[in-house]
Amino acid sequence: MNAKKVSLKDIALKAGVSTALVSYVLNGKEKETRVGQAIAQKIKEIARELNYQPNHLAKSLRSGKTHTIGLILADISNPFFANIARVVEDEAKKSGYTVIIGSSDEKADKAWDLLNVLITRQVDGFIIVSSEHSEPHIHYLKERNIPFVLLDRHFPDLQTDFVATNNYKASYDAGVHLAKGGYERIGIIAYKTDMYHMRERIRGYKQALQDHKFTFKNNWLKEVQFENIETEVKIAIDEMTSSKDPVDAIIFATYGLAINGLKYINELMLKVPSDLGIVSFGQAEVFDLYYCPITYLKQPLELLGMTAVEFLLKKLKNPEEGVKQILMEATLIARDSSMLKPT
Amino acid sequence: MNAKKVSLKDIALKAGVSTALVSYVLNGKEKETRVGQAIAQKIKEIARELNYQPNHLAKSLRSGKTHTIGLILADISNPFFANIARVVEDEAKKSGYTVIIGSSDEKADKAWDLLNVLITRQVDGFIIVSSEHSEPHIHYLKERNIPFVLLDRHFPDLQTDFVATNNYKASYDAGVHLAKGGYERIGIIAYKTDMYHMRERIRGYKQALQDHKFTFKNNWLKEVQFENIETEVKIAIDEMTSSKDPVDAIIFATYGLAINGLKYINELMLKVPSDLGIVSFGQAEVFDLYYCPITYLKQPLELLGMTAVEFLLKKLKNPEEGVKQILMEATLIARDSSMLKPT
Repeated sequence: MNAKKVSLKDIALKAGVSTALVSYVLNGKEKETRVGQAIAQKIKEIARELNYQPNHLAKSLRSGKTHTIGLILADISNPFFANIARVVEDEAKKSGYTVIIGSSDEKADKAWDLLNVLITRQVDGFIIVSSEHSEPHIHYLKERNIPFVLLDRHFPDLQTDFVATNNYKASYDAGVHLAKGGYERIGIIAYKTDMYHMRERIRGYKQALQDHKFTFKNNWLKEVQFENIETEVKIAIDEMTSSKDPVDAIIFATYGLAINGLKYINELMLKVPSDLGIVSFGQAEVFDLYYCPITYLKQPLELLGMTAVEFLLKKLKNPEEGVKQILMEATLIARDSSMLKPT
Repeated sequence: MNAKKVSLKDIALKAGVSTALVSYVLNGKEKETRVGQAIAQKIKEIARELNYQPNHLAKSLRSGKTHTIGLILADISNPFFANIARVVEDEAKKSGYTVIIGSSDEKADKAWDLLNVLITRQVDGFIIVSSEHSEPHIHYLKERNIPFVLLDRHFPDLQTDFVATNNYKASYDAGVHLAKGGYERIGIIAYKTDMYHMRERIRGYKQALQDHKFTFKNNWLKEVQFENIETEVKIAIDEMTSSKDPVDAIIFATYGLAINGLKYINELMLKVPSDLGIVSFGQAEVFDLYYCPITYLKQPLELLGMTAVEFLLKKLKNPEEGVKQILMEATLIARDSSMLKPT
């Protein structure tokens, strides 16, 4: 910002009054000084003329409250997070809070930069969709008593507030649903990550197989790297469909995996649901508009976002508030993509 | 932030040295004071032990540079903007800038709040996707010499830096393409707004009709409200397809309009491209994965985002830099949705 800053002194000089008086008037404290209304009016007009810009930053340094929430997303280009950002903003606005957003692209170092930039900017607290290896950030925030709520992903070994989906149960439901739909060789494509939400999705899937007496084959579980998703999803599908135990159905553990997978399934001219049954996590218009509407696990996006804001605002009001943790249930929305035989 | 802040004095007391010395050491100026390395080391260790957190905010108040860019989006839940945000972040990071994002939901008052929150947070400059009626924001930024670049949307009557798409040409191309594809009664669904980019899309469409000697009917142009998109798109399609001059093709002026339109076209069991030809603005996976792949106007998303960052960084280096304006061309990606007869 390159404009020469107009100071209280500039205004005082022009108005022919003291700097203290200008400060009182511009901070809305003219009553305390018995200053005449005409003078107050004059000071305000001069401030406007000179384009005086109050230094909110210095002000919030003193008050320690900025009514701003930092929202750190793992990936802004994922519609699930983009939509949850909108919910968080709407909900925060109802309580007079503005949300500033950063996206870490699933990279812990970028998340760390953002965290520091926003701490420096004096946000009152954070809502965070964590990326892998970002546990130290949690420790950092806790040590400094900076209020935060984890959203969508959490670390089971760390005692923090969080609002997330019961991913184990959701994935279990997907497996059971495909088994009931007539599929017997069900695979899953997930991300290669230690993140708990992803481990839970794999665990739920395996449990569903076990409960249906299907013997899990190593070839049915593929873990691909986020950075290399397009190529690796193709390889995964090739391997899953061409082995001696080819899958007849695939669970996609995220929206991004599903999009890439469906494009490749089209290229291969595999028909959904007859050649391959599909259930996906995430939600997006594409699941409605695909030639064979896709069965998906609908996460309570609105409720997740709203509850995260609620938890954070409670914490801001009362820092001694106890730890709040919620796992919400996803709903399986059954469509044509997961029915091999009519049940 | 509720932690008792550790001050330089706390460290000085514990180290048994002066506060000034602590300040010198922690600001990396120990050479200027001839302080022994052992003492410097001790001071740094104590600072670490006590979790001393330097006040970056006060520091950036002095230096006037924060290496932070504010990105204001019109709608974060629109994948076009979410993806452009990712490009802007990546590009800014290459030059050591962090991006903080806000979304205005197409509302000028929300954009105004965000602008002020981010100015208060001392961002060095802005990249802005403007919402309707936000011209006063532009004047405000200009008066204060706050550097900014408009992205994707601009105001032709205001002299500002901008990076946008040639919307007139893109829409003209869509009309011509549909005419060549055999359609003769081409309609357009746009937003009801005075925003220039939308007026240009309508103007280009009309010009294409005129150049093909098609007489434009009022019923072929529908303008719906952003807040009421789902209902109004349905009404628009009902009216366009059931009048005495029913359309045989529709141009959707945005991605959001297309998604809502395609859902309703499916409900009505209208077949694309035989009952209705389709061309859409925006880009999204859904256009690839729809049963009939959708012809769309591919905006140079990466180039738009990268150029906006480039313009802003130039301005930050040299505030006297002249005004930079670029209109980039969209590319029509022809698919099955716009071919009634083979050409």
